[in-house]
Amino acid sequence: MKVKIAQIQMHIREDKDENIKRAGEFIDEAAERGADIIVLPEMFNCPYKASCFPEYAELPGGKTYTFLKNKAAGKGVYIFGGSIPEKDEESRVFNTCFIFDRKGNELGRHRKTHLFDIDVKGGQSFRESDTLTPGNGPTVVDTEFGKIGVMICYDIRFPEFSRMMVNEGAGIIIVPGAFNMTTGPAHWEILFRTRAVDNQVFTVGTAPARDVDNFYVSYGNSMVVSPWGEILGRMEGEEAVMLTEIDTELNTKIRNQLPLLKHRRPEIYKS
Amino acid sequence: MKVKIAQIQMHIREDKDENIKRAGEFIDEAAERGADIIVLPEMFNCPYKASCFPEYAELPGGKTYTFLKNKAAGKGVYIFGGSIPEKDEESRVFNTCFIFDRKGNELGRHRKTHLFDIDVKGGQSFRESDTLTPGNGPTVVDTEFGKIGVMICYDIRFPEFSRMMVNEGAGIIIVPGAFNMTTGPAHWEILFRTRAVDNQVFTVGTAPARDVDNFYVSYGNSMVVSPWGEILGRMEGEEAVMLTEIDTELNTKIRNQLPLLKHRRPEIYKS
Repeated sequence: MKVKIAQIQMHIREDKDENIKRAGEFIDEAAERGADIIVLPEMFNCPYKASCFPEYAELPGGKTYTFLKNKAAGKGVYIFGGSIPEKDEESRVFNTCFIFDRKGNELGRHRKTHLFDIDVKGGQSFRESDTLTPGNGPTVVDTEFGKIGVMICYDIRFPEFSRMMVNEGAGIIIVPGAFNMTTGPAHWEILFRTRAVDNQVFTVGTAPARDVDNFYVSYGNSMVVSPWGEILGRMEGEEAVMLTEIDTELNTKIRNQLPLLKHRRPEIYKS
Repeated sequence: MKVKIAQIQMHIREDKDENIKRAGEFIDEAAERGADIIVLPEMFNCPYKASCFPEYAELPGGKTYTFLKNKAAGKGVYIFGGSIPEKDEESRVFNTCFIFDRKGNELGRHRKTHLFDIDVKGGQSFRESDTLTPGNGPTVVDTEFGKIGVMICYDIRFPEFSRMMVNEGAGIIIVPGAFNMTTGPAHWEILFRTRAVDNQVFTVGTAPARDVDNFYVSYGNSMVVSPWGEILGRMEGEEAVMLTEIDTELNTKIRNQLPLLKHRRPEIYKS
């Protein structure tokens, strides 16, 4: 089945309303260009800074949630809403992707499960766990294009997660993410390609545009990878919408030729 | 700790004795150049052809086994003996790596656990399971350089396996393998790099030299990858011995900067 996936690689500014407005313009453009699925980047309404997350956080049903829901229904598209800081009734804050179908129904939500705490010598230092609470598992939603797995950024570093989603039947894995200028050039491409190859699924990584004046400089390089590991679409650091058409039949073809998933030995594996 | 790893990327011929003799010459060269660990390629004494495996198979203690044991003791080096067809008392045949320490003691043996059955349209077709019996798990051996994991070729496609070895403490993963000219260019490099990055270990892939007249054309490209995913040494298709010095301290440095293994959520994962 053919699916047009639009990835919005946008700059993210201090002003939440401005971020939502820009996202809306890009969603409109993607819908006009025929997108079936629109994917936003991680923390698209909020600067990627641990101290900002509580301040920008919303309850489900809040401003950004309602904006995404209405856009999905208004344009008749699936929206995988990158992520936003979500708060719950107890004021815990999560890094959450809300997912809406063509009618604006919430299909699911993924809370980032592996929090990013890093301290690379001479490179990036960042501690999400200072202000965020982790989710508790991977997320798979049902769509007219089959099952789609969703995880956020650092979650992709844990091969167990992609595998669990594929064991649940996912044929596409969507990952809003924001690698930086240290980890991005070193790891972003090989992670998306290898997760695709190991699991014989499409992987879709969507990042913020690169902004060298930001506190956190996103590597960008939003990409779509085929189940054979080929890069079907790739951006650099620019702000843009990229449309990539994929054919989900390819999963089946490749799984027939090289039946990796059948050759697994789950009776042996231990986590 | 500094470790000099020698990889023998050799041509493999019809004649078993000739293969053993050539391996011996390369082991001598590697030892003279100061290798601590010598790694041979997959099925180094036998053409890579399912129908040959039973014919070339030996019981442990047989000709090839004894050759490797004596070389390890004679040269005072660790030998990871690529693999050979091993038979047991019931005449079952395995694709097995025998591992010897500097004194010629058998440290362990790994039987390939995921058998390679592939049928790529317009590409390679091969069925190991026609003549081979699979092993039942990954292998980790103790050395003066810490724990070393061993698996064979197709085993590397299953991320669960690398992870299990690393959970058991492996800091280096040694993989005799023989990808072909379809899967090699597409997947060999990203698999070795991503397993290294995910697990923050060194990975060592050792293949036969490329021989375009063979039934099965090996991609070659023997390589050593650092725990950050950098390729430290890489061959192309040539027959040669490559020496790469690694420093196992790098595992610790990288695990301190980006504590991936601490950030795992094993309580969530399911195989």
